[in-house]
Amino acid sequence: MNERRTEISEFGEFGLINHLTKNWPMFRKESLKAVGDDAAVLDSSDQITLISTDMLVEGVHFDLSYSPLKHLGYKAVVVNLSDICAMNGEPHQVLVSLAISNRFPVEALEELYFGIKQACQNYKVDLIGGDTTTSRSGLVISVTAVGKAEKGKEVYRSGAAMNELLVVSGDLGAAYMGLQILEREKSVYQSSPEVQPDLNGADYILERQLKPEARVDVKIYLKELGIEPTSMIDISDGLSSEAIHLAKASGLGLSIYEEKIPIDNLTYDKAREFNLDPTLCALSGGEDYELLFTIAQEDFEKIKDHPHFSVIGHMSDPAAGYVLIDRNGGQHQLTAQGWDPLLKG
Amino acid sequence: MNERRTEISEFGEFGLINHLTKNWPMFRKESLKAVGDDAAVLDSSDQITLISTDMLVEGVHFDLSYSPLKHLGYKAVVVNLSDICAMNGEPHQVLVSLAISNRFPVEALEELYFGIKQACQNYKVDLIGGDTTTSRSGLVISVTAVGKAEKGKEVYRSGAAMNELLVVSGDLGAAYMGLQILEREKSVYQSSPEVQPDLNGADYILERQLKPEARVDVKIYLKELGIEPTSMIDISDGLSSEAIHLAKASGLGLSIYEEKIPIDNLTYDKAREFNLDPTLCALSGGEDYELLFTIAQEDFEKIKDHPHFSVIGHMSDPAAGYVLIDRNGGQHQLTAQGWDPLLKG
Repeated sequence: MNERRTEISEFGEFGLINHLTKNWPMFRKESLKAVGDDAAVLDSSDQITLISTDMLVEGVHFDLSYSPLKHLGYKAVVVNLSDICAMNGEPHQVLVSLAISNRFPVEALEELYFGIKQACQNYKVDLIGGDTTTSRSGLVISVTAVGKAEKGKEVYRSGAAMNELLVVSGDLGAAYMGLQILEREKSVYQSSPEVQPDLNGADYILERQLKPEARVDVKIYLKELGIEPTSMIDISDGLSSEAIHLAKASGLGLSIYEEKIPIDNLTYDKAREFNLDPTLCALSGGEDYELLFTIAQEDFEKIKDHPHFSVIGHMSDPAAGYVLIDRNGGQHQLTAQGWDPLLKG
Repeated sequence: MNERRTEISEFGEFGLINHLTKNWPMFRKESLKAVGDDAAVLDSSDQITLISTDMLVEGVHFDLSYSPLKHLGYKAVVVNLSDICAMNGEPHQVLVSLAISNRFPVEALEELYFGIKQACQNYKVDLIGGDTTTSRSGLVISVTAVGKAEKGKEVYRSGAAMNELLVVSGDLGAAYMGLQILEREKSVYQSSPEVQPDLNGADYILERQLKPEARVDVKIYLKELGIEPTSMIDISDGLSSEAIHLAKASGLGLSIYEEKIPIDNLTYDKAREFNLDPTLCALSGGEDYELLFTIAQEDFEKIKDHPHFSVIGHMSDPAAGYVLIDRNGGQHQLTAQGWDPLLKG
């Protein structure tokens, strides 16, 4: 944060938003009117519109003692773009509303908007509106994302069919391990403020927690592979919970093979260091913002060697329930609660 | 509120939203998918899309000691629909996000959603998404409204031209007087809890404060009259502040005639009772959610006797500034701050 401290009250509500969004680049020609009128105006087309909204609350979704504001702004946008990706859509616009306490100077908001702007630039999405208001306590960020999909190509959670393959992008559990490290260093700092935080060698998993990315590339890879996903969801709450959402919405059961779950080496080692089961971190950790989707069995050959995808299981009869098959062939019941321990089936 | 008290924790996040939106009616065929997937899905057309978002924060925008939750839910939706009306659009969908503290039982949320549902039904708008999360302190409601306008018929703040007439719908100042009464009765209650609140005969202005309506009818009346507004804004912050927004966005000055400002008799009498200037209540009070717009001079004859509209002034050269002409012909400078006293020009 800068040394300067400008009180928010020095700007009016409108002055503040104008100040924070000055020289803001726009990327989408359909964004006819963005910030500055009663509503944003989007030009239509023959595509369908996707809209998603998420709220981040201080003390619940983030801790400002270790979340830099610019990362927080970035993440608030990204988690919403991820929802658009999870419909097989392309995110185009965002609206960002903030409730802020006076304890924040304008420079803190500038830092937050710096992160929002970075996300807008990286993903070529336009900031088209929002609301900035006072909060009597913590910081609340509400983001609405707008996207497009070709008509008929949008993918719902409910589209999976029996025996289809369950595929996940990237790797899982890293964001959760990043959080463990940040929480540990926070408690070390609280008891011994003179000790320097030990974050060495954990860059990847810290970044997964603090500055996640939305998988806008998955749609492109699948198109290249000639694969149309049949159902899709993003992993915000952990693989187990999201897989069960997918199965429930599709009226099916599912099986996941433990050995197929993609876990990065660093995540694995850090989990062991923390005496955590790496598989449990992947199943229940959440905040990875990877995409989980189903494809037809005949697409297996097309996807099996792709570096960004792992086939981790398949859909099954609803009577079979939600099953994790461990390395020894043992079967376990997956539970909807991301945080519950696994129950032996 | 009901006698029952069900803890929010008895439902999961998804269970809670499913519970609150059970049997929810849908009105728009373009709302392909609403609550229950990663994003809402809207079918497009040859119209343009309007999107607006607003955040209401407990202790800042509402006081639960006199705002019934069902009115609050209703109002949270309506203030967003009003923004769509202010673009000359028709509101079609809303997304509602809540941050709620555990001090609220499920029954309180049911009451809030009852109000949201009433607004959805009255205005035939679909609830298509949202997010429900924990708050560590007060209640925060963030609503995003989506609407449509015929391409080329959307109306911006910036469209006014020199000498065009300034018109306002309905009457002004009542919502502010409603707030004064509620604040007075709250302070009476705090000092003498045995005294019954004196709200008699103030129904209209209390309703204007607690349960405002969005002027979806203005678009219809104007069409009937054969009038196309050239610029438009809704009055959320007071006539003075909104008129100046319009003038600034259009690069013009303006004059408003005090005697033309529509003030309901009850508002007038209550203002006098509170030793407040009724004109000042109308200029600076806010929360009336009436529409302020400009029309061509030649449309004067069409609109002058309409019961829902008042021609209150005209746009002028920017050098003339923002002027209030009082009953004696005296000129005063209007200020952007809704709450500042008028300065003699």
